[in-house]
Amino acid sequence: MEPRSGCPISAAVEVLGDRWSLLVLRDVVFADRRYFRALLTGSSEGIATNILADRLVRLVEAGILTRGTAARGQRARYSLTEAGIRTVPVLCALGDWGLDWRPDSTELRARHELLRDGGPAFVEELMDELRVHHLDAPPKPRDGPSPLERLRAADQP
Amino acid sequence: MEPRSGCPISAAVEVLGDRWSLLVLRDVVFADRRYFRALLTGSSEGIATNILADRLVRLVEAGILTRGTAARGQRARYSLTEAGIRTVPVLCALGDWGLDWRPDSTELRARHELLRDGGPAFVEELMDELRVHHLDAPPKPRDGPSPLERLRAADQP
Repeated sequence: MEPRSGCPISAAVEVLGDRWSLLVLRDVVFADRRYFRALLTGSSEGIATNILADRLVRLVEAGILTRGTAARGQRARYSLTEAGIRTVPVLCALGDWGLDWRPDSTELRARHELLRDGGPAFVEELMDELRVHHLDAPPKPRDGPSPLERLRAADQP
Repeated sequence: MEPRSGCPISAAVEVLGDRWSLLVLRDVVFADRRYFRALLTGSSEGIATNILADRLVRLVEAGILTRGTAARGQRARYSLTEAGIRTVPVLCALGDWGLDWRPDSTELRARHELLRDGGPAFVEELMDELRVHHLDAPPKPRDGPSPLERLRAADQP
């Protein structure tokens, strides 16, 4: 895909300036949905099959996701690339904005408040955890629950 | 516009998950384009007239821009609301990602490097300057050039 201008924001929105691509990324990152069916049935926004298929192809072509090779009869698993993991600050900035300016968004608020209160250090730790799950990076020693475990615990009623 | 889920990221991408809306916001914020014609003719991505008109209506409806009342024969000026000014961290996160992962984006790199190197403090100062221009906030005393002046100077060859 040829960028339409040389501006870094423009280059980023060529890939990330799309509602469904951002929601797919959100579900891969925060809900660890790695398979087509999990992304389809888990989507609280009700993504359509053809839109999900299209956005997964686009995200792979843009170097944000990789699609694992699946044996016959097996399902392909998607993984974040390093470029994909580095979209987390964009997702967090969007979540921050939603927290402040869309106060009716009542689900998962505790999770996003934890993310925001954790600041850049928490985001770095979360990206390290994603590198372990998606890029087979060696886990770093840690006391207590991981960032994703803490985010999930925040949403428990 | 009814949000399709209660998630703050989802609520944000209902408005901001659109390429052209983000590029219009970028031009209002960083290039101080406040009029329809300036946004149309200044767009380095070549936005179409009907798309610009549509996105301006959407951004006003979403509470991100306000449209000034124009006297007969005069053009209406757009202003950022506080919610609009608070999208700057999202634009900066996108620019950061573009700097790292779309290295072919050669225009305006110096500007985005300055933005990134300045960190959250520079972003706060920039949002304060936007509040002066768009919301008639009283200017704060400052030594030397303003954030927008420094960004513009960064791009001079």
